[in-house]
Amino acid sequence: MDFSSKLLAQAVDEMSLLPGIGKRTALRLVLHLLKQPKQRTQALSAALSRLREEIRFCEQCHNVSDQPLCAICANSHRDSEVICVVEDIRDVMAIENTSQFRGVYHVLGGKISPMDGIGPQDLTIASLVEKVSDGRVRELIFALSSTMEGDTTNFYIYKQIDPAKVLITTIARGIAVGDELEYADEVTLGRSILQRIPFESSFKQS
Amino acid sequence: MDFSSKLLAQAVDEMSLLPGIGKRTALRLVLHLLKQPKQRTQALSAALSRLREEIRFCEQCHNVSDQPLCAICANSHRDSEVICVVEDIRDVMAIENTSQFRGVYHVLGGKISPMDGIGPQDLTIASLVEKVSDGRVRELIFALSSTMEGDTTNFYIYKQIDPAKVLITTIARGIAVGDELEYADEVTLGRSILQRIPFESSFKQS
Repeated sequence: MDFSSKLLAQAVDEMSLLPGIGKRTALRLVLHLLKQPKQRTQALSAALSRLREEIRFCEQCHNVSDQPLCAICANSHRDSEVICVVEDIRDVMAIENTSQFRGVYHVLGGKISPMDGIGPQDLTIASLVEKVSDGRVRELIFALSSTMEGDTTNFYIYKQIDPAKVLITTIARGIAVGDELEYADEVTLGRSILQRIPFESSFKQS
Repeated sequence: MDFSSKLLAQAVDEMSLLPGIGKRTALRLVLHLLKQPKQRTQALSAALSRLREEIRFCEQCHNVSDQPLCAICANSHRDSEVICVVEDIRDVMAIENTSQFRGVYHVLGGKISPMDGIGPQDLTIASLVEKVSDGRVRELIFALSSTMEGDTTNFYIYKQIDPAKVLITTIARGIAVGDELEYADEVTLGRSILQRIPFESSFKQS
């Protein structure tokens, strides 16, 4: 695209580096900002800049946080011996929204993915293994997405951990609540039959 | 959504004010920035802020420009007596990409749209009318999108202008090049028959 202004071209270029935002969308967003009052753009620009400069990560679980300890880890009502291992902060938010989990989290910051150049050392696996070997953990719940990368990461962590020290579980896979069987894929349906549970447990509350 | 960090919540809120960007997308974009080196976020933030502070609009055609006159208006090879009236800078870019137009533009900055609270005084119509009554214009080409708002705007400008002073034209509507007739809508197909042109003109170059 040929812009009549270098300032515009630069803003569009920077914007289009964001994932899923192409040049056209970036131009649309930037032109929208130009039509809005100046304060809008300044507020956006300042919020992004402050976020990147001042953000901290919880020392315990590596979730983003404004304090050294995040609100979940700092909450004494949560069971710090049950750790749910997730990929990133969005998964924490998703699980928190269910109100079904009273333990704490461990945010890995990604999945092992050789294709994207992400190895175990890029994730917070070492600190998780340390927590377990310190004997501070009773149960580890794997809640990574069930892709090849997720399974690889689960397995890598599993191999690093002494199974005598901790109970390792993984979230249930099966037919989604409200879904019809005929539209479910075979792998999921197959698993949900193999991993059937006693009927009484199916209406158990946490 | 419940964020563990106020900085994060603020950045997501600002981001989600952009058109077509909801909270979830905003969160994805902001988390992406957090994974990138700090300079990326600072470059984006600075580019947006500079754009909004320093951008100027061409005095002649109201296109965005870093100079008082944009590159098109400043180009002496362009015919400044033929003015193509467009809605915004994206239309300028689209027409420039065709390399078929040697005149100049007039960017209205929008269309008359009472529903969105945009009246004639919010657009650069007055300066266009002035250019015409100064006798500096030979032809005015309406190139607004053919929606109700576009037609209203065309008609409003048409009423403001002395038809003796200037030739007023509008871009051709018809079946797109490469399209099959059977899939065209009736209005477009109907118009393309009513406004048929001599066959010899159809392979004329500009």
